[in-house]
Amino acid sequence: MKHIDINCDMGEAFGNYSMPNDIILMDYISSVNIACGFHAGDAHVMQETVALALQKGVAIGAHPGLQDLQGFGRREIKISAREAYQITLYQIGALSGFVKAAGAKLHHVKAHGALYNMSAKDVELAKAIAQAVQDFDTHLILYGLAGSKMIEAAKGLGLATASEVFADRSYQDDGSLTPRTQAGAMIEDEKESIKQVLGFAEQQKVTSINGKVISLKAETLCLHGDGHHAVEFAKLITEQFKAKGIVIKTP
Amino acid sequence: MKHIDINCDMGEAFGNYSMPNDIILMDYISSVNIACGFHAGDAHVMQETVALALQKGVAIGAHPGLQDLQGFGRREIKISAREAYQITLYQIGALSGFVKAAGAKLHHVKAHGALYNMSAKDVELAKAIAQAVQDFDTHLILYGLAGSKMIEAAKGLGLATASEVFADRSYQDDGSLTPRTQAGAMIEDEKESIKQVLGFAEQQKVTSINGKVISLKAETLCLHGDGHHAVEFAKLITEQFKAKGIVIKTP
Amino acid sequence: MKHIDINCDMGEAFGNYSMPNDIILMDYISSVNIACGFHAGDAHVMQETVALALQKGVAIGAHPGLQDLQGFGRREIKISAREAYQITLYQIGALSGFVKAAGAKLHHVKAHGALYNMSAKDVELAKAIAQAVQDFDTHLILYGLAGSKMIEAAKGLGLATASEVFADRSYQDDGSLTPRTQAGAMIEDEKESIKQVLGFAEQQKVTSINGKVISLKAETLCLHGDGHHAVEFAKLITEQFKAKGIVIKTP
Amino acid sequence: MKHIDINCDMGEAFGNYSMPNDIILMDYISSVNIACGFHAGDAHVMQETVALALQKGVAIGAHPGLQDLQGFGRREIKISAREAYQITLYQIGALSGFVKAAGAKLHHVKAHGALYNMSAKDVELAKAIAQAVQDFDTHLILYGLAGSKMIEAAKGLGLATASEVFADRSYQDDGSLTPRTQAGAMIEDEKESIKQVLGFAEQQKVTSINGKVISLKAETLCLHGDGHHAVEFAKLITEQFKAKGIVIKTP
Repeated sequence: MKHIDINCDMGEAFGNYSMPNDIILMDYISSVNIACGFHAGDAHVMQETVALALQKGVAIGAHPGLQDLQGFGRREIKISAREAYQITLYQIGALSGFVKAAGAKLHHVKAHGALYNMSAKDVELAKAIAQAVQDFDTHLILYGLAGSKMIEAAKGLGLATASEVFADRSYQDDGSLTPRTQAGAMIEDEKESIKQVLGFAEQQKVTSINGKVISLKAETLCLHGDGHHAVEFAKLITEQFKAKGIVIKTP
Repeated sequence: MKHIDINCDMGEAFGNYSMPNDIILMDYISSVNIACGFHAGDAHVMQETVALALQKGVAIGAHPGLQDLQGFGRREIKISAREAYQITLYQIGALSGFVKAAGAKLHHVKAHGALYNMSAKDVELAKAIAQAVQDFDTHLILYGLAGSKMIEAAKGLGLATASEVFADRSYQDDGSLTPRTQAGAMIEDEKESIKQVLGFAEQQKVTSINGKVISLKAETLCLHGDGHHAVEFAKLITEQFKAKGIVIKTP
Repeated sequence: MKHIDINCDMGEAFGNYSMPNDIILMDYISSVNIACGFHAGDAHVMQETVALALQKGVAIGAHPGLQDLQGFGRREIKISAREAYQITLYQIGALSGFVKAAGAKLHHVKAHGALYNMSAKDVELAKAIAQAVQDFDTHLILYGLAGSKMIEAAKGLGLATASEVFADRSYQDDGSLTPRTQAGAMIEDEKESIKQVLGFAEQQKVTSINGKVISLKAETLCLHGDGHHAVEFAKLITEQFKAKGIVIKTP
Repeated sequence: MKHIDINCDMGEAFGNYSMPNDIILMDYISSVNIACGFHAGDAHVMQETVALALQKGVAIGAHPGLQDLQGFGRREIKISAREAYQITLYQIGALSGFVKAAGAKLHHVKAHGALYNMSAKDVELAKAIAQAVQDFDTHLILYGLAGSKMIEAAKGLGLATASEVFADRSYQDDGSLTPRTQAGAMIEDEKESIKQVLGFAEQQKVTSINGKVISLKAETLCLHGDGHHAVEFAKLITEQFKAKGIVIKTP
């Protein structure tokens, strides 16, 4: 039976600023990446999001980011590999405090925003993050961009990995994402998104922006939580999976 | 044989700002309270301080504070009991990341500055902090001001505790510290300090500011790390303990 | 002709977190208090909000708060009078950078949240804030709670002031706000709110929570921007003022 | 008569973390760049440093940096030109609050650390910073690396500029600084430093790392304040200037 994981970045509220979609979307996903207070989230939001995930039976992951609340962790900061190791370990630890207090276990780690993108390309950063994950708990699964240095580095250390694909991003012939600065980077048409997602789930294949059909490992699908149509799209995609007999479950 | 723990707040450097005493003082103490990034410290400093403590065989504790880097966690912030629970858990978790990665175990928790003082008097805050400690790990020892609500709340939950006393603060007849706003709060004379400390270690007694001899449980002595004479005083006090046959060891 | 100022706290978005009401509400007010990056707001939001205010002809004020983004400046922090002076001056300066660059003039200052409440009662904090305002520019108007120490301190220095009243808060017999911890603090009924506001604008009078009619200076009415009905209430109140011939204008 | 400005980055203390050299070094310089709270400094330190500069007759400049306290503003953050404009304006404004309250005038602006280096090479960032300076006050002098895009952009807008040179950094044949990652970037020998500085002050010339004598405009010399020998070097250099009849004064 075919299956895929659906993950979503959550707990990205902060103080007075709420993220109302979180509560609704938790019903449509199998794993959640919870912000750890560096790019978003705070101790209150983390506790609440951990509790919600446990209530809904969703696997909990840490979502460490760069320490840039104002930039939401989306701006590249030139950090050293050692700094990447340290901020990753700090944030995994912080989230694990809430997970442990709730009597649960941390399931995975997925880097956020610029840290995700930087570690997809920079092997030193990727190794540092993977090392932090392994040093904390060898059983954690590292989520990373399919075909990235992050996945490579994690495998190199013997960590379990989950290759991530996107519904709303187009792919290039080599399996990398089309950079956002290029035309056609975002798939605006919902039907195209659904088609791409089903291709991933059923055949581990995707049609590149140039029309070439390429193989791409797709163990987890990233659902965006902050767009206007996030909830509708979540419903649509899970209905499609159900109709096609694709089971949504953690890797 | 008589014994006492000597603890010190460390890892309170931040980014470019160093705390050079830390390396020297680690030789004179049996337990260390490491700042967790809220009132001081950062991921880099935390990793370094954990490594130093392990190298020197010093028991590692988390030192959570209020989220007030600019005020060094010394200004009271009116937080709710729930917020106290959450920020304590976050910070214990964050430090435990480094401790776990180093293959070690967290030994204790001691609140910092205003959080320490507030939870010494406010039973709701004290209970919340104790609950966070217990929810994280029932084996952790909670360090708190001797005779405080913090110790009371921790005992109420069945946690192990360590009652803390000070070398350079005078005591009132009821065993509480003389407030810093009052004359005579600080013991400036080194000989007086030594005398007070030996009284604690040998007899669990202290002479109050009014000259009354009172009993006070003294399981751990707080050594200040940031004064000019911090290192000299550390040498002096440990020599005195050696001379008197008092063993310095963790509670 | 009767007139009143309507002010609103704005520019309280931050980074990725938006405050969509700001654009709409700017049409209904005569003066705006713009957050300065301590309790909310950032350099980007400040520039945008200054530009919007100028476009709509709304008088611009600085809205300094405590440095507590996670608590939105609503939690009391025990700061000294000197610290109050310094953080007020810093924030007025920061906002004035954008105002000056836009070729405009800063009109007033109103403290935010806990800083507003603390300086309403604590004469030392009130004096420090008033001094910072005066030292920056003697022509600035200080907005403060009607009947508060803040207004008193500002007048004491010879500053122009604007006494602020609220539509949705009940008043006690002595003219102070009913504390939020007491029943009846918030006026939930929209009709009651309107009635209270018209009483302020037409007669400088308000009926206390105990039914006593008291005089209260009301030079500026605070419109809340973050509630669900904020926009509707803004429309309603301005229509009522129009119908009654009350002109909305700056003090 | 020959003359040169000596500037120094100051006010880079923060909260509990002090910078004791500041008070001593203020006696040896003609202009000071005061940190504005983003990479270092806070409202308290800013007020104190402004007061000290005024007491010593030193010209006051704003020293805006990237919002990265933990990295001391030394790590590159990929910000947009608009963000560079906004954070520069915010910080100039904030410092000007203290300058204005002290009855003084802001004299210049010099970017800090990574913002300085990025804007030395990236013309868009340079233009944005220059625009912020000009929009705030057309009379401000922009300090920048001699021969950089920053100086070019400022001149392009008609701003007065001061070309900065360094005592302890070696230069390449094209007048740029030898990158810190290359051997010989730092001039460790004090005599070599003095020789280079005198060459700047007397002849506007420097010998490159390859032995080539090149012309380089040198209107202001940057004195580092945080090294161990900072104070000694300051004494030495000012004595040398005195001996050679070179006057230390602002541009």
